[in-house]
Amino acid sequence: MNSFGRIFRISIFGESHGESVGILIDGVPAGLPLTEQDLLPDLERRKGGKQKGTTPRQEADYPFFKSGLFNGKTTGAPISIFFENNNTRSADYEKQRSFPRPGHADMVAHQKYGGNEDYRGGGHFSARLTTGMVAAAAIAKKLMPGVTIAAEVTEIGGESDLEKGLQRAIDAKDSVGGIVECRVNGLPVGLGEPFFDSVESQIAHIAFAIPAVKGIEFGAGFAAAKMFGSQHNDAIENMDGKTRTNNAGGIVGGITNGNELVFRIAIKPTASTPKEQNSLNWDTGKVENFSVKGRHDLCVALRAPVILEAATALALVDLFLLEQKIKRVVS
Amino acid sequence: MNSFGRIFRISIFGESHGESVGILIDGVPAGLPLTEQDLLPDLERRKGGKQKGTTPRQEADYPFFKSGLFNGKTTGAPISIFFENNNTRSADYEKQRSFPRPGHADMVAHQKYGGNEDYRGGGHFSARLTTGMVAAAAIAKKLMPGVTIAAEVTEIGGESDLEKGLQRAIDAKDSVGGIVECRVNGLPVGLGEPFFDSVESQIAHIAFAIPAVKGIEFGAGFAAAKMFGSQHNDAIENMDGKTRTNNAGGIVGGITNGNELVFRIAIKPTASTPKEQNSLNWDTGKVENFSVKGRHDLCVALRAPVILEAATALALVDLFLLEQKIKRVVS
Amino acid sequence: MNSFGRIFRISIFGESHGESVGILIDGVPAGLPLTEQDLLPDLERRKGGKQKGTTPRQEADYPFFKSGLFNGKTTGAPISIFFENNNTRSADYEKQRSFPRPGHADMVAHQKYGGNEDYRGGGHFSARLTTGMVAAAAIAKKLMPGVTIAAEVTEIGGESDLEKGLQRAIDAKDSVGGIVECRVNGLPVGLGEPFFDSVESQIAHIAFAIPAVKGIEFGAGFAAAKMFGSQHNDAIENMDGKTRTNNAGGIVGGITNGNELVFRIAIKPTASTPKEQNSLNWDTGKVENFSVKGRHDLCVALRAPVILEAATALALVDLFLLEQKIKRVVS
Amino acid sequence: MNSFGRIFRISIFGESHGESVGILIDGVPAGLPLTEQDLLPDLERRKGGKQKGTTPRQEADYPFFKSGLFNGKTTGAPISIFFENNNTRSADYEKQRSFPRPGHADMVAHQKYGGNEDYRGGGHFSARLTTGMVAAAAIAKKLMPGVTIAAEVTEIGGESDLEKGLQRAIDAKDSVGGIVECRVNGLPVGLGEPFFDSVESQIAHIAFAIPAVKGIEFGAGFAAAKMFGSQHNDAIENMDGKTRTNNAGGIVGGITNGNELVFRIAIKPTASTPKEQNSLNWDTGKVENFSVKGRHDLCVALRAPVILEAATALALVDLFLLEQKIKRVVS
Repeated sequence: MNSFGRIFRISIFGESHGESVGILIDGVPAGLPLTEQDLLPDLERRKGGKQKGTTPRQEADYPFFKSGLFNGKTTGAPISIFFENNNTRSADYEKQRSFPRPGHADMVAHQKYGGNEDYRGGGHFSARLTTGMVAAAAIAKKLMPGVTIAAEVTEIGGESDLEKGLQRAIDAKDSVGGIVECRVNGLPVGLGEPFFDSVESQIAHIAFAIPAVKGIEFGAGFAAAKMFGSQHNDAIENMDGKTRTNNAGGIVGGITNGNELVFRIAIKPTASTPKEQNSLNWDTGKVENFSVKGRHDLCVALRAPVILEAATALALVDLFLLEQKIKRVVS
Repeated sequence: MNSFGRIFRISIFGESHGESVGILIDGVPAGLPLTEQDLLPDLERRKGGKQKGTTPRQEADYPFFKSGLFNGKTTGAPISIFFENNNTRSADYEKQRSFPRPGHADMVAHQKYGGNEDYRGGGHFSARLTTGMVAAAAIAKKLMPGVTIAAEVTEIGGESDLEKGLQRAIDAKDSVGGIVECRVNGLPVGLGEPFFDSVESQIAHIAFAIPAVKGIEFGAGFAAAKMFGSQHNDAIENMDGKTRTNNAGGIVGGITNGNELVFRIAIKPTASTPKEQNSLNWDTGKVENFSVKGRHDLCVALRAPVILEAATALALVDLFLLEQKIKRVVS
Repeated sequence: MNSFGRIFRISIFGESHGESVGILIDGVPAGLPLTEQDLLPDLERRKGGKQKGTTPRQEADYPFFKSGLFNGKTTGAPISIFFENNNTRSADYEKQRSFPRPGHADMVAHQKYGGNEDYRGGGHFSARLTTGMVAAAAIAKKLMPGVTIAAEVTEIGGESDLEKGLQRAIDAKDSVGGIVECRVNGLPVGLGEPFFDSVESQIAHIAFAIPAVKGIEFGAGFAAAKMFGSQHNDAIENMDGKTRTNNAGGIVGGITNGNELVFRIAIKPTASTPKEQNSLNWDTGKVENFSVKGRHDLCVALRAPVILEAATALALVDLFLLEQKIKRVVS
Repeated sequence: MNSFGRIFRISIFGESHGESVGILIDGVPAGLPLTEQDLLPDLERRKGGKQKGTTPRQEADYPFFKSGLFNGKTTGAPISIFFENNNTRSADYEKQRSFPRPGHADMVAHQKYGGNEDYRGGGHFSARLTTGMVAAAAIAKKLMPGVTIAAEVTEIGGESDLEKGLQRAIDAKDSVGGIVECRVNGLPVGLGEPFFDSVESQIAHIAFAIPAVKGIEFGAGFAAAKMFGSQHNDAIENMDGKTRTNNAGGIVGGITNGNELVFRIAIKPTASTPKEQNSLNWDTGKVENFSVKGRHDLCVALRAPVILEAATALALVDLFLLEQKIKRVVS
């Protein structure tokens, strides 16, 4: 439910406008040097308000370690990290409470939780929860030295000229979707576990936990569906398994093959468009015109790269620890 | 690893050319009427050799129940189902053992398992393992009366005229990829668990366990990345959450919203193309020309619908049982 | 590792002399009325310093909810609860750091975690961690209306006259062990899951997480090993399964049978005896005489009842939710 | 439910008088030499009919590997092992079906599964299921070279002269309970995971899955509850943690400390005593006199040692693999 991972196991909690959000991490080996400073660069990248098209809400996002650290190192006990919610404007949400916002979880959360959900700012469904993922991933990355994970927006609103795609949305006074691509280098061969815990399964599982993600593809992905086998197959030419082409995106049979891991996610337009919308008014029972209040990203894809990198690191570190174990025991 | 699900929990085993493949299912409630007959229709659909472009290997695929049934009903104890492997021609694989087949798991399995893997017919990586998934799903579906799951091939080799796409591959003497779309009707509102077990996460997780799947998208999917928010949002017009458009594909915030669940997977071309390929010869250490032996599907997408339906049922039944529990306790 | 439960899932964190201890609870249904007040009675019972023979360390042990509550009710999202550590005297531990205390985890923790463990006050091994268990159990109990769980000390230092047993220890200036018995009434028939999650398995699992527990027995327990079958069997005399004798302790075949659930745990004497001891000095490498500093319970069994009740509630609620699900689906 | 273990994960299935019993094992590293012969010695020890006081039912108990082996070695894929049930006499059970046998799971199973359970010979609750545990443990032991696990009956019916205790039962024409003690040598320091997966928690969890176990104690166990701290503490005298006394039974703080691991289980008298009993007749609704049919052990404790060794190996191997992983990553 709110946990992910078998050995490096994260558990997430918090609400957008509650007191805090945070994460609990079990399975971190002892003796790893760790300070708040290690987490700040990625947390900084995750913040809104840094560039055109992102939410003006600004939070300090300072990670408070509440357990698991001693003398600047991990102890082997669970690490808990808290982030305070300070810059909330819940009144925005009270005002529009009668409208379940289209594209948001308002309606389903209301039905699933019988009206008991914390609806302010999306509550537990908010992308603000990903703060904890980013923090945990900074630790995960330290356990995989030599592995580099880099994601970037490759398309906004169908434009690969990102500036242009964003400007089109600004001009249209509308939100817009985008594509984020992630590349991982330095992975060993052999990560991923048949039959159900392939690298694709694990990454897709956690990637779809990122709000607004509606698709994922590895290597050639959907384009592969249009290809012939002779075009798609990556010829093996070396004993280490490196191939010149990489249509497989670095994964064959669900297992890393030593090539660059490449995949892309599709991010839908921010549900909270500045445009007026028609939707049901719960109070009146009628479809009415309304506009979403609150502070929102015009294009959430812009903030997604660091979150996708985090999700990727969290999926990989768990497979990495599992494989580590297997290799060592037998040899 | 080889298990999936929290409450309705499946564990898969077997190898393509070993003695058997099968599945163990824990968490099936007692008292469900069940016979081998219930499983045969979907198992029949999964078989190869039924249509142009599928493998000529034919197996009886008769499900032998080894536990968990008594007097024609489930007992509440684990259900084990076995399938014999009879029609194997392992000699095909011995011959080409020196070539790790491009696009297959041969190379990564060899590196991951230190050469101890059962390589015949792909061993544990074979799509033959999905036989167990199809059998388990037939049971899963009986626990979700009123829910219909239907998948179909919508594209072969980029052609929505399927006959044409397949003929192009036959003419080119090459294998080819395709798209399979799955639609689920009759689902209750509220399936899916924040933060990590969204409906998308669960379905994607198991869908990527199906060999050859390289992408998945829900609702508008990758097309959503090109849209404005005002285009993509499905306006809520009724108290039950039904919407006229369905860009969300029936899932908002990771939770089913009562609309049709719609998603698509991208299936790469069968790695075993009839075409000659260049690849490393492990024995000589040189790149050489070779052709894949064995009996294979020209387009695995053709056999995928029933398997994707099975994967979908297995993901949903687990979320269904989980939600069932939560709802009942409080009310 | 630091989590327990499948559906009602708790994750514990913190250190005795770190910043805080706490617990994260996933799987609590939405709509349950809940305030800090609901937790205080049991937390108060768990505190030391209330009676002769318990530690003079006093902590406020006020539960700070950090997520999962809204308008006085649970939301369905994870509930995180924090307790501050204020009344720490870590200097006590610095002084005796060179002596790994006999009966304590000092030595094994040092070896397991390579010297990176937080050793102050036992760190993550401290019984202070059970504060979170007590808090979580208060919530668990609200999900099992009609179920009463009551534990009491039945023996101190071999004496069933508890005052006398304790006085003997005070006179001897030594710590002392004890027996705690737990009785649960109002349980439905049918809790417990074959083959590995019997009621005994689940309760024993979490009971042994309580520091100082070295034995557990259900019903007649070890005495049963001395009995004949005709003496031990509880004759079934009613359709509801109620029996006049209860040697089984309310569990047959690992499943609750509707009778009172009865079990006992053996608690070893507090490792930190006031008596001088011989033990290795890590710095000198020699066995030397030393006495344990810090504030400790003379008889930890005195504080165990509320903790054992909590452990019991946490084991039962998970089995309860699981059984709930199964019953409802079929009927 | 029917699975145990996190990394070395076993899943059990089958019924006493069904077609088969068996076990599925996931997480076994590749490359381990393994044949049926490796399993036979312990399977032979588990059989009944070998000595006075055990069931006359004789089964070949030959382990059929159905997956996971290739060329005499493990492949890294799941290992499935089957045992056929040949020597069943289900008619014995039909006759006495109207009496839910006291001390057996008949009544609770009937209530839990709504009458759909396979009641023949105890069905899924039968000790015959432990055949799979014994087989899996033979594999587990091969992964822990240098570790020896040895259990023995130390008491029958309260007598440490076992022959005498058994004869008393034979004379009384009654079944009888006993104590089994297990000792493990060669374990590394550091196995066991705080807070919930202590060595005691893991061993107790699986030990209580063995039918008829009603108590467990580690080291001094229940006797510790009567001791003073100065008596119970094992003085640490060497840098390797070895102690002269071993009241802790080799576990401190839930972690192995390098000393011999010692624990005992209490086994209740066989529920199926040859003596006549009074119990409810479901058909008449009256309490009547009846005697249990079928073939049974007079003292199940006699067959328990090899099963307890197996349970112990299964608990330890999982902790061993987990610790292996952690150690290696950091160093």
